Amino acid sequence: MEAYVNRAEKILERINALAAISEDASCVTRTFGTPAFLEGSALVKSWMEAAGLATRLDNIGNVRGRLLSARPGAKTFVIASHIDTVINAGKFDGPLGVLIGLDLLEQLVQQQAALPFNVELIAFSDEEGCRFHTTYLGSKVVVGFFEPDLLQKQNATGTNLAAALATMGCDAQQLAHDAILPADWLGYFEVHIEQGPVLYERNIPVALVTAIAGQQRVELVFKGMAGHAGTVPMSMRQDALCCAAEAILAVEQFGLAHQQTLVATVGKLDIRHAASNVIPGEVACSLDLRSADEAQLAWASQALREKLEAIVRHRDITLSWNLIQQTAPVTCDAVLNSHLARAIADAGYPVVSLVSGAGHDAVPISKVAPATMLFVRCYKGISHNPLENVELPDLAAALRVAERFLTQLITHHS
Amino acid sequence: MEAYVNRAEKILERINALAAISEDASCVTRTFGTPAFLEGSALVKSWMEAAGLATRLDNIGNVRGRLLSARPGAKTFVIASHIDTVINAGKFDGPLGVLIGLDLLEQLVQQQAALPFNVELIAFSDEEGCRFHTTYLGSKVVVGFFEPDLLQKQNATGTNLAAALATMGCDAQQLAHDAILPADWLGYFEVHIEQGPVLYERNIPVALVTAIAGQQRVELVFKGMAGHAGTVPMSMRQDALCCAAEAILAVEQFGLAHQQTLVATVGKLDIRHAASNVIPGEVACSLDLRSADEAQLAWASQALREKLEAIVRHRDITLSWNLIQQTAPVTCDAVLNSHLARAIADAGYPVVSLVSGAGHDAVPISKVAPATMLFVRCYKGISHNPLENVELPDLAAALRVAERFLTQLITHHS
Repeated sequence: MEAYVNRAEKILERINALAAISEDASCVTRTFGTPAFLEGSALVKSWMEAAGLATRLDNIGNVRGRLLSARPGAKTFVIASHIDTVINAGKFDGPLGVLIGLDLLEQLVQQQAALPFNVELIAFSDEEGCRFHTTYLGSKVVVGFFEPDLLQKQNATGTNLAAALATMGCDAQQLAHDAILPADWLGYFEVHIEQGPVLYERNIPVALVTAIAGQQRVELVFKGMAGHAGTVPMSMRQDALCCAAEAILAVEQFGLAHQQTLVATVGKLDIRHAASNVIPGEVACSLDLRSADEAQLAWASQALREKLEAIVRHRDITLSWNLIQQTAPVTCDAVLNSHLARAIADAGYPVVSLVSGAGHDAVPISKVAPATMLFVRCYKGISHNPLENVELPDLAAALRVAERFLTQLITHHS
Repeated sequence: MEAYVNRAEKILERINALAAISEDASCVTRTFGTPAFLEGSALVKSWMEAAGLATRLDNIGNVRGRLLSARPGAKTFVIASHIDTVINAGKFDGPLGVLIGLDLLEQLVQQQAALPFNVELIAFSDEEGCRFHTTYLGSKVVVGFFEPDLLQKQNATGTNLAAALATMGCDAQQLAHDAILPADWLGYFEVHIEQGPVLYERNIPVALVTAIAGQQRVELVFKGMAGHAGTVPMSMRQDALCCAAEAILAVEQFGLAHQQTLVATVGKLDIRHAASNVIPGEVACSLDLRSADEAQLAWASQALREKLEAIVRHRDITLSWNLIQQTAPVTCDAVLNSHLARAIADAGYPVVSLVSGAGHDAVPISKVAPATMLFVRCYKGISHNPLENVELPDLAAALRVAERFLTQLITHHS
């Protein structure tokens, strides 16, 4: 265990060195393609090169380092996570998985291990999608699902993705050549912080991920009648905010009643022409509904809609239910997960399965390859926040499990 | 009645002429001191002059026209309303009372009536307070309660009130001289649209106002814990918005339970760092609580605070209760109201008493003089809105009642 702690310390040093590179001196911010981002990816590239990997930047800015198998026609197993961040981010969301992967490949190089498959470490350039309001630009290129329309996406100052790629020295014409072809994939593995409180509350360092929840994002618009807060008697009001409040509590109740299979959240709420002395006439709010079970997600959406429609009818308010975005759940690969479960058990930890409520690069990758993830406990489940933290023993535990997993996989395929 | 309808038509023509003067060609907007406002007040001044009143602009921009009594030491009875508007206003809020008053004084001039008191018609320059975020600038000067600190108040572009007054040709040094001294007041009367739905719902043209509600404006801040909408299980959340929603419904319930004596409204709500995929960690909202009964207002505020504190305790959320503004209720003068009730009854209408939930210039004026108001039905109670409307028969009814009231008062004091 001592060795893993020493290696974990080195990983933590690298995580700290990467976190010190930021667009903003007061916090960690490295959004896709910015000078700070490019400086960070150059540092990761230098580490991959120093580790002895065949390293390159691809045309979406992913840093990619390969260890090749001597076998003819060997498939590729990808270990990856992302190095872009949200604004005012934590240090671990993304870099943890990349730098644990780097350590694993360093060990393989040092051991001069004979590989039955190629191993490729990828630091994805855009998972958070903060700059261009996209999702998974980096991994979409690697699986060949990058839609050329995305090149026209603009950032807040009107620069489009095509122009940003040119500035980064990338050649958008070559993006298709950066894909690993479906037939060449052996599998995909990512270590990531849980970004939720379950492991923290249960005092367990790691968990395997069985699925990534599907999501419906809905805009709810409640329309009543605005009025003067002083002159309209309580019984004559059509207050859109009171109606929205009843709906928000119904969403919460529904989520609690079905908490084994879903989460439901209202995160945004805007009152049109809000003023303290005006009865709200129109309220728009968001609804975020997630479940790992596609049928459950569809049922929940319909059931919740009916509940809200009953509420608005009762109050003489109208409701618009506008589906904004919908993603299907992803099931992690059962074979990879049986290896991962064994690795966790062999390392001496309880085998806990979690559903990821957050999206990850495994979502696009699972379309072409078996994929799974290892979640690592983070402090109170806090993420996308400077308070995000992983304790050193947990980092060492994750490293130990990941190494056992990779070793098993190599043995299995040898 | 025919004569009143003809006079009401003329009043409506003037209301329309004034409404056609606006800062914005697409709607009615005449905020204090703007070029459109000055054009509007010049028009009102020209009408007062044409009516034969001794007319002047005072140093806060009020248009004032006097009819003098021949009696030595005669007191002054003020008939007034305001000619500034909110942004995207209706035509009647303010001008209705000024132009009904103008018609009444025109009649007195034509009748060469011997007056037992002076009658002064005032078109207040600033009741809405939109430009400098103030209240009652015009009437505060007339009662001598204008605080010199107000001169430093800035508008949205950084101009202060002192500079605006200079541009208007007003002399801020002379403001104190524009006050009617407390000993010189006989009383105050204002005709105004109800700005609420009670008369509309009850199908009654006018009502006397017994009181203007006192108000507490409170900022409520709910603090929970932000989190990822996908990864934090429902039972582990401290969702500040769900807590605020429960509080909003408690405010509504409380208001309904005590609707004979108060109104309670949440008009603004802001989620800190709101995003559709983030569990709200902090929510601020406004609470507007009004009652004509000061003791009831104080009790209600305390009782509601205890209810909300119980809600937040139950949810492990913290609540800050910040009192932002507090105004005491104003009771309209009983003697003036007995005259007004008789005038309403004599004109053949049911005598209905209302509490004004909105503030009016009668609030500062009641500190120095007996004051009352006549409310006029408006379409569905809609105000501060282009849909604001008063039907011609109701305008004629208000004119008829106001004239009877003034005649009684003259007879009473002769």
